[in-house]
Amino acid sequence: MISVNKSPISKIDSVNFDGLSFGSVFTDHMFVCDFSGGSWTDPKIIPYQPITLEPSARVFHYGQAIFEGMKAFKDDQNQLFLFRPKDNFKRFNISAKRLAMPEVPEDIFMKGLNRLVRLEENWVKCGVGRSLYLRPFMIATDAAISAAPSKNYKFMIIASPAGVYYSGEVRVLIAENYSRAADGGIGFTKAAGNYAAQFYPTSLAQQKNYQQVIWTDSNSHEFVEEAGTMNVFFRIGDTLLTAPTSDHILDGITRKSVLKLAEDLGIPTEVRRISVAEIKNAARNGELKEIFGTGTAAVINPICGFEHAQEVFELKMFNNSYASILKDRLTAIQHNRADDPYQWRHMVP
Amino acid sequence: MISVNKSPISKIDSVNFDGLSFGSVFTDHMFVCDFSGGSWTDPKIIPYQPITLEPSARVFHYGQAIFEGMKAFKDDQNQLFLFRPKDNFKRFNISAKRLAMPEVPEDIFMKGLNRLVRLEENWVKCGVGRSLYLRPFMIATDAAISAAPSKNYKFMIIASPAGVYYSGEVRVLIAENYSRAADGGIGFTKAAGNYAAQFYPTSLAQQKNYQQVIWTDSNSHEFVEEAGTMNVFFRIGDTLLTAPTSDHILDGITRKSVLKLAEDLGIPTEVRRISVAEIKNAARNGELKEIFGTGTAAVINPICGFEHAQEVFELKMFNNSYASILKDRLTAIQHNRADDPYQWRHMVP
Repeated sequence: MISVNKSPISKIDSVNFDGLSFGSVFTDHMFVCDFSGGSWTDPKIIPYQPITLEPSARVFHYGQAIFEGMKAFKDDQNQLFLFRPKDNFKRFNISAKRLAMPEVPEDIFMKGLNRLVRLEENWVKCGVGRSLYLRPFMIATDAAISAAPSKNYKFMIIASPAGVYYSGEVRVLIAENYSRAADGGIGFTKAAGNYAAQFYPTSLAQQKNYQQVIWTDSNSHEFVEEAGTMNVFFRIGDTLLTAPTSDHILDGITRKSVLKLAEDLGIPTEVRRISVAEIKNAARNGELKEIFGTGTAAVINPICGFEHAQEVFELKMFNNSYASILKDRLTAIQHNRADDPYQWRHMVP
Repeated sequence: MISVNKSPISKIDSVNFDGLSFGSVFTDHMFVCDFSGGSWTDPKIIPYQPITLEPSARVFHYGQAIFEGMKAFKDDQNQLFLFRPKDNFKRFNISAKRLAMPEVPEDIFMKGLNRLVRLEENWVKCGVGRSLYLRPFMIATDAAISAAPSKNYKFMIIASPAGVYYSGEVRVLIAENYSRAADGGIGFTKAAGNYAAQFYPTSLAQQKNYQQVIWTDSNSHEFVEEAGTMNVFFRIGDTLLTAPTSDHILDGITRKSVLKLAEDLGIPTEVRRISVAEIKNAARNGELKEIFGTGTAAVINPICGFEHAQEVFELKMFNNSYASILKDRLTAIQHNRADDPYQWRHMVP
């Protein structure tokens, strides 16, 4: 049973929903459940508030921290939906296992999510592009700095209203030296540590006026892996290409949704290793039509140019791109403006 | 100027200094300095206490967290020393840069350290093996979950009394699939995220009754890199071998101290890539005499056996091993029982 302690006041009236900066405003409540003595106890929703930890808490020292990103949507009749939440739940526990953290039971994860979203329903606005971004996360709380897994953890869900994600024109630098993940490592998880590692190489790209890095494999830097914190797709001729998931590529929920939609729209898709050389050759001979990133926050983010080994390539933007067709189709399903033969929409009880 | 707010009471009388578990007891005070508005402000020593952060603090989500481990020692005249603290300071800022975190100025790091150790001098006990373990660390505190570097940080130093580190007999499993760090990644830093990634593969080794994993390169798994959270040395015949530092191997301070001491003791040393095949061949023909790990916590930790690809090898333990000679020499310098031609000892003012 989830106990609910409602906030006496709401800050919703102070929020400008038309000027939201991603991930900086949070709703009135949060879900919390602690793991200790080998079990998850006392799941609760309480007013959004700071958390207090010992300076020796293992999350600060050894990085046992994982998260998920997902969204709740409203349709035009004010019905509330989550998009493929069980996929996030499953991936959360895949991350947990790899980071030697306890798995969260499905009923705690799903009921916590449903109750929180229902409680915060006024924060979910109608209209394509608008959503409530949900951030389940788990941190290690043991007050001891021996290098071993924590015995105590905190699982939380916080929620942040999101508007249309607009990143401007995105150009990317294809990595020649830096890498995001190793074979045998944790690149397939949503571990906090994977993200901090990307910031510095990304800042170097930004100094050259690229917004993101396309990561390449750490062995040879010959094969593309992800774009920034997104999975990455390429359109060569009429074929849509993306790299296969592995222990160093995230099994993105937007990625697999896009693949399924593309197949059902009759778009030829190939999931295989893609070399940088192939991309550059296709760009040179005019066959490279599109590059885009996929992820929960941005949904589908077109990339209009790239650099690799001092060579700069620019793509022509055009109407009816795969990126725009697939994004329209996906957001229509998310907002209940289209049929959902895949049962991706989960109605919030 | 560092402000000092002394704790009205000390918990030192409640501590059993002969039964310390590593990293679980902390002294009465901690050093704190916050970074905001582009600069470090208000360095202070305050009573040891919990810290309060927003649930959206970036350290919980994107793993911007780094640390150092170092020790303070007392000699038999109650003089207080740190061991090579500037090396820790420099490495801390190397980690900071790679994680897109602000560097800590030398005077804040060193003065904070000196003042804290001096204030806690009663916690540093005399005798070889006894020390005060110091843990400088930095965490990202911005209350926003956009995937970008934080603008606000907290730098802290906490201190934990340490006794003789005894880990029992250590046997290790040489990694065939899992890896610790990638080329182009952050393995050379003391980033929190590097440690969480090791716990699960280590737990698999522990299920087979191995205490630690010897990590191999992520490309081929043919070359040894580190042992658990330590650098690793091998003695083949009379030669002491260790892997060169790189972007995926930590530039360990104990490692480089051991190399220097070995050279000056006339021990032949080689710093080069070492293949698993070479180690196994040397073990088979009796040339592999020793394996040991080096690190601040354990100093030098002998390894008495290993497994790789279902083959098990056991080493004979013997007197006057390189491990014991080098450990005696190093701890004698640390505790001011031997000359220090290297100027590694830093007297705490």
